[in-house]
Amino acid sequence: MKPLKVALLGCGVVGSQVIRLMHEQAGDLAARVGAPLELAGVAVRRLGRKRDIDVDPALLTTDAEALVTRDDVDIVIEVIGGIEPARSLIVAALSRGKSVVTANKALLAEDGATLHEAARSGNGDLYFEASVAGAIPLLRPLRESLAGDHVKRVLGIVNGTTNYILDKMDSTGASFTDALEEAQTLGYAEADPTADVEGFDAAAKAAILAGLAFHSRVTAEEVHREGITEITATDVASANAMGYVIKLLAICARSDDGRSFGVRVHPAMIPRSHPLAGVREAYNAVFVEAESAGQLMFYGKGAGGAPTASAVLGDLVAVGRNRLAGTRGPEESTYADLAVHPMGETVTRCHVALDVADKPGVLARVADLFAKHDVSIQTVRQEGHGDDAQLVIVTHRATDAALSATMEGLRELDIVRAVASVMRVEGDE
Amino acid sequence: MKPLKVALLGCGVVGSQVIRLMHEQAGDLAARVGAPLELAGVAVRRLGRKRDIDVDPALLTTDAEALVTRDDVDIVIEVIGGIEPARSLIVAALSRGKSVVTANKALLAEDGATLHEAARSGNGDLYFEASVAGAIPLLRPLRESLAGDHVKRVLGIVNGTTNYILDKMDSTGASFTDALEEAQTLGYAEADPTADVEGFDAAAKAAILAGLAFHSRVTAEEVHREGITEITATDVASANAMGYVIKLLAICARSDDGRSFGVRVHPAMIPRSHPLAGVREAYNAVFVEAESAGQLMFYGKGAGGAPTASAVLGDLVAVGRNRLAGTRGPEESTYADLAVHPMGETVTRCHVALDVADKPGVLARVADLFAKHDVSIQTVRQEGHGDDAQLVIVTHRATDAALSATMEGLRELDIVRAVASVMRVEGDE
Repeated sequence: MKPLKVALLGCGVVGSQVIRLMHEQAGDLAARVGAPLELAGVAVRRLGRKRDIDVDPALLTTDAEALVTRDDVDIVIEVIGGIEPARSLIVAALSRGKSVVTANKALLAEDGATLHEAARSGNGDLYFEASVAGAIPLLRPLRESLAGDHVKRVLGIVNGTTNYILDKMDSTGASFTDALEEAQTLGYAEADPTADVEGFDAAAKAAILAGLAFHSRVTAEEVHREGITEITATDVASANAMGYVIKLLAICARSDDGRSFGVRVHPAMIPRSHPLAGVREAYNAVFVEAESAGQLMFYGKGAGGAPTASAVLGDLVAVGRNRLAGTRGPEESTYADLAVHPMGETVTRCHVALDVADKPGVLARVADLFAKHDVSIQTVRQEGHGDDAQLVIVTHRATDAALSATMEGLRELDIVRAVASVMRVEGDE
Repeated sequence: MKPLKVALLGCGVVGSQVIRLMHEQAGDLAARVGAPLELAGVAVRRLGRKRDIDVDPALLTTDAEALVTRDDVDIVIEVIGGIEPARSLIVAALSRGKSVVTANKALLAEDGATLHEAARSGNGDLYFEASVAGAIPLLRPLRESLAGDHVKRVLGIVNGTTNYILDKMDSTGASFTDALEEAQTLGYAEADPTADVEGFDAAAKAAILAGLAFHSRVTAEEVHREGITEITATDVASANAMGYVIKLLAICARSDDGRSFGVRVHPAMIPRSHPLAGVREAYNAVFVEAESAGQLMFYGKGAGGAPTASAVLGDLVAVGRNRLAGTRGPEESTYADLAVHPMGETVTRCHVALDVADKPGVLARVADLFAKHDVSIQTVRQEGHGDDAQLVIVTHRATDAALSATMEGLRELDIVRAVASVMRVEGDE
């Protein structure tokens, strides 16, 4: 049987695991695909570098473009990340009829349209299971298993670094800075943690998830994004006291009329009893609510060389089978073409802690302000006395615009000394 | 665009939801498939019966065989369950080149080989996502997403009825009988609960899961099966006191040398901290350990009309797309052809409670018996005194044969008044 030839772009943490698994499991992969898979070449930045894996030096090249356009290459695996040169290389491969497996969330979320268009024009496959939640089979279920259902909402913990930090803060009482430092020491966070802690990584994944869930095209720019750097040990303790835990969530939710949806990444309080609350350490999990299927959750490792390589190889097998059968997998589905509504129209709930003067009439004035903005209060309780008095309020569902306006108003009230914390509440309707 | 014609076998709880969704989501389904789906007929047992759903009486027929062999029918959905006439009807459809979507776990586990063979001969698709864990996208991920990985173990809560009963026993202290009665009142358990509480339903699902996970052919007969009827409120309380919870698990595990695997369904103690421990009520969840992907979990509703229909429709969309593209999805993969090893060779751990005489030398004699059978003890503790003295022992990993022989030996020791309970321990290596 003629082998399928595979070009690999990138030989870092993920790429070296892809090579290892292609080698170690060659027999199984051949049986599952229907033909052997042969590594045709590996594009790297520098040739001489020491690598984690034994790879035939003759396979290495610094000319990625020549590699992806070689006539004998059937499938290209892209694990270099970033926008360029990844985009040009993928487009070059796809437009020549090759199939591509990629883990590149940033590129898919910034310019997925260009890639999908190239896949269509070349009549090849573009698979990207590894781009969201690493090893967790998630995109294929969303795209295929739930193809007969209506997804209402996706709530995901899709960034392992921030989940590790928030979990440490929750379980040990650590500050954000200390928890981040520990994550960096353990290799869960990078030296420059911005992409993770400011929510950029999660936002790219949210865009991909929303596109699949709602059969529409979404870019990372359309995702409302807030990070976790402002979260204090006090916020975490106060959530804990109320039976909640703070998680950085990627949320894609259809509007009540079904004609638009919101996509956002921000920290939120979720009840301890919610399945996502038990997701510890650097694990990822995605909770899906569909009209007929009800509540589903997918849980597993969101990053790391071997887990990501597992997702890449799953796609490689599918793409390989498709090529042998002379067919293509399901292509991008954007027929619904729903609009992304602005954050202000998103319906959510809020937990607010206010430092207030401890005197009669304070609650009445605060309640009056909420009413003025049409935000109804679910619970309110006073903690402490005198100079330490704090009002802790949890609202019912309201638009984010109304909630923001209420917070603005509270900051201007003379009886409110400070808005100590504001946090959205999710997962308990 | 020419519609794809769909024949539905069965119009009960699941079938009526399939009809409702095909009707309500006709537009979305057409967009996702690439052609409209048209209901060609519905086979029922009796024509006059009152139904949960409005269906054109002209579509109803009692002649299922005529329906599935009609030339204009492209796809057959089978949701009548049981072995016959389901098998003959599915084989008739497949051998005529039609594609089949089925939720029939019993048939697949008893005689999947015949169905897969018919699918191959007719060059059509046989999809069965709904047969295991209802709405949870599980078979497609196992079959496709993990196709580039090696599954080491699958631990599943795949029967909602027994999970509901065990969860009630755990959360309220109820007896098995009372919990079963409540489950029956709420419609979670049938009047004759045998298939659920004796583990037959879970065993069929275990056979299907093991076949997919290990690329081998497995029948329900090969599954070691124990039910939950012997579990007492004391067992549950004692597990709880040790930080464990009792679940009915379907376990498929590769042997250490990778050359065989075990498949079994039995109650087991799992640590409270295990992701499966938090699966409450009638929910299902399947925990997968793969070599590269690591630990994964899939969670959701395992039964019910709408959830099962969601899984059926997901398959319907896939099968429909394949027909339009003139291709087939991945067929049965049994290339590994591993053997199922007998239960005695399965490696597990045991929790044992012994009523013993409270006198010097008892522990030494008990420990000696374990040693004689090469079973090493992890923890032992004495509870109570005098006539109430109980030894609670948790073993290290050993073969089930050695553990069984040890239990036999304990029953014969004169210092052991009774073996109060024996339960396997899983999920904490």
